[in-house]
Amino acid sequence: MNWIEEQLSKAPFLRLDSEQTTRLLVTTLREEIEKVGFQRVVIGLSGGIDSALSLYLAVRAFGADRVIAVRMPYRTSSTNSLTDAQIAVEETGVESITIDITPQIDAYFNRFPEASPLRRGNKMARERMTILYDLSAEHRALVVGTSNRTEILLGYGTQFGDAASAVNPIGDLYKTQVRQLASYLGVPQSILDKPPSADLWSDQTDEGELGFRYIDVDILLYHLIDLGLSAQQVKQKGFDPSFVNHVVARIRQNQFKRVMPIILKVGSRTVGTDFRYLRDWGV
Amino acid sequence: MNWIEEQLSKAPFLRLDSEQTTRLLVTTLREEIEKVGFQRVVIGLSGGIDSALSLYLAVRAFGADRVIAVRMPYRTSSTNSLTDAQIAVEETGVESITIDITPQIDAYFNRFPEASPLRRGNKMARERMTILYDLSAEHRALVVGTSNRTEILLGYGTQFGDAASAVNPIGDLYKTQVRQLASYLGVPQSILDKPPSADLWSDQTDEGELGFRYIDVDILLYHLIDLGLSAQQVKQKGFDPSFVNHVVARIRQNQFKRVMPIILKVGSRTVGTDFRYLRDWGV
Repeated sequence: MNWIEEQLSKAPFLRLDSEQTTRLLVTTLREEIEKVGFQRVVIGLSGGIDSALSLYLAVRAFGADRVIAVRMPYRTSSTNSLTDAQIAVEETGVESITIDITPQIDAYFNRFPEASPLRRGNKMARERMTILYDLSAEHRALVVGTSNRTEILLGYGTQFGDAASAVNPIGDLYKTQVRQLASYLGVPQSILDKPPSADLWSDQTDEGELGFRYIDVDILLYHLIDLGLSAQQVKQKGFDPSFVNHVVARIRQNQFKRVMPIILKVGSRTVGTDFRYLRDWGV
Repeated sequence: MNWIEEQLSKAPFLRLDSEQTTRLLVTTLREEIEKVGFQRVVIGLSGGIDSALSLYLAVRAFGADRVIAVRMPYRTSSTNSLTDAQIAVEETGVESITIDITPQIDAYFNRFPEASPLRRGNKMARERMTILYDLSAEHRALVVGTSNRTEILLGYGTQFGDAASAVNPIGDLYKTQVRQLASYLGVPQSILDKPPSADLWSDQTDEGELGFRYIDVDILLYHLIDLGLSAQQVKQKGFDPSFVNHVVARIRQNQFKRVMPIILKVGSRTVGTDFRYLRDWGV
């Protein structure tokens, strides 16, 4: 039994029907892209498992020749990241573009030599977004998102950075489910096995920074969100109270990342409040 | 009668109660910022009327010492823009920061010397967003938005660029209403009087690029959105059919800019679809 199966055996309620989930995601991804009149997609490929899964799903949906993978390293990015991304590019056969973001980032932080790693990391995440959207316009290719459900709920991502996309095929999958589906779809083993990291500074790992393991938080999130239990109820079920409080606080504190900018209301039909239509409005 | 009064006399239904609207916006702006535990705000100041109005409202809400204005010129930006922004800074007494975006933008487009003015303009708008958010983190100051209702409805702005903010006090005001309120709040005459422009390339004017005047489109949008009339109904009222069709098409085509990234649905409580709470959730 590999380590992904071992995790799922602890949380069978997280297990997906891989074949059916793939079919569902591939079909709806295709529909969403074609609905807006686009034929191609562009994806930022970090070398991590999330963007690799988005890539493999997109290739299933559109074929390799309609998918553009973009690698955007900074000078401190791990070389393993670049290599792993390259393996995924070669195995899928998609077109790839590599753009070094070092000149732009360093040009900005020359003004702020004391800037923290967090500021630098967020600026890089947003720089990558601006590049994906520039290439989106240039190639008439929609930006496919790479944020998973765990990080969206925890707010563990950069608003208007990696969180920005046109359509996100993995945003309803917990990290544990991303691992399961990535394994099913043949994402390279080196990507499956390495510790998740935003690679914003050296030796960063998600689990080190978050202070808990993905499998543990996924189980908790499932109880809180999918089963709709209260913090009190999950504590009664035996979850560690301080872990529960910490996660619930994160979900609430980062709610702003999951909504559009607030428009202060003056009139009777305010955008985002009273004036909200489905994407299919009028079609 | 000045030109703003002259426009409002043609469309009395657009006229605001300036005093009451100011009180409402100042109060709710203060509430939204304090709710999230922030004491300061940061605003990108272009030299145009929209960001000037946001600035003047923020100064009323918080006082000059809690507002940071950021000017982010590119080398081709009009010097008038910079001067007009400076006048607003001096008249309000706020702290100001000026960051030239030329090095970062040129570092990127060195790769793409053939890039169109539109691509360059969008990259600049997004670069400015990344700077505002970086300064937001550095100064613990929330980003105040500067997009008006007309441009939000028409989608005349850069997604994840000037359209991005934490809270937007002018997003429910048509351009014509922005003019009225800016005049009431004492925004400098040079800003009130100049032709609106995104200043993304030289000689750009909004009305030239859009192909119609703000007063005309505001009147049409009011009939379509606020009164809820159909395209057919407004045509029967005498609006030019091709103008109506063009504006309705713009509203629809740019709907994607007014919503969060689409998350493809797999589970039962998808973020943005079933898992949506008000900002005040749990508070």
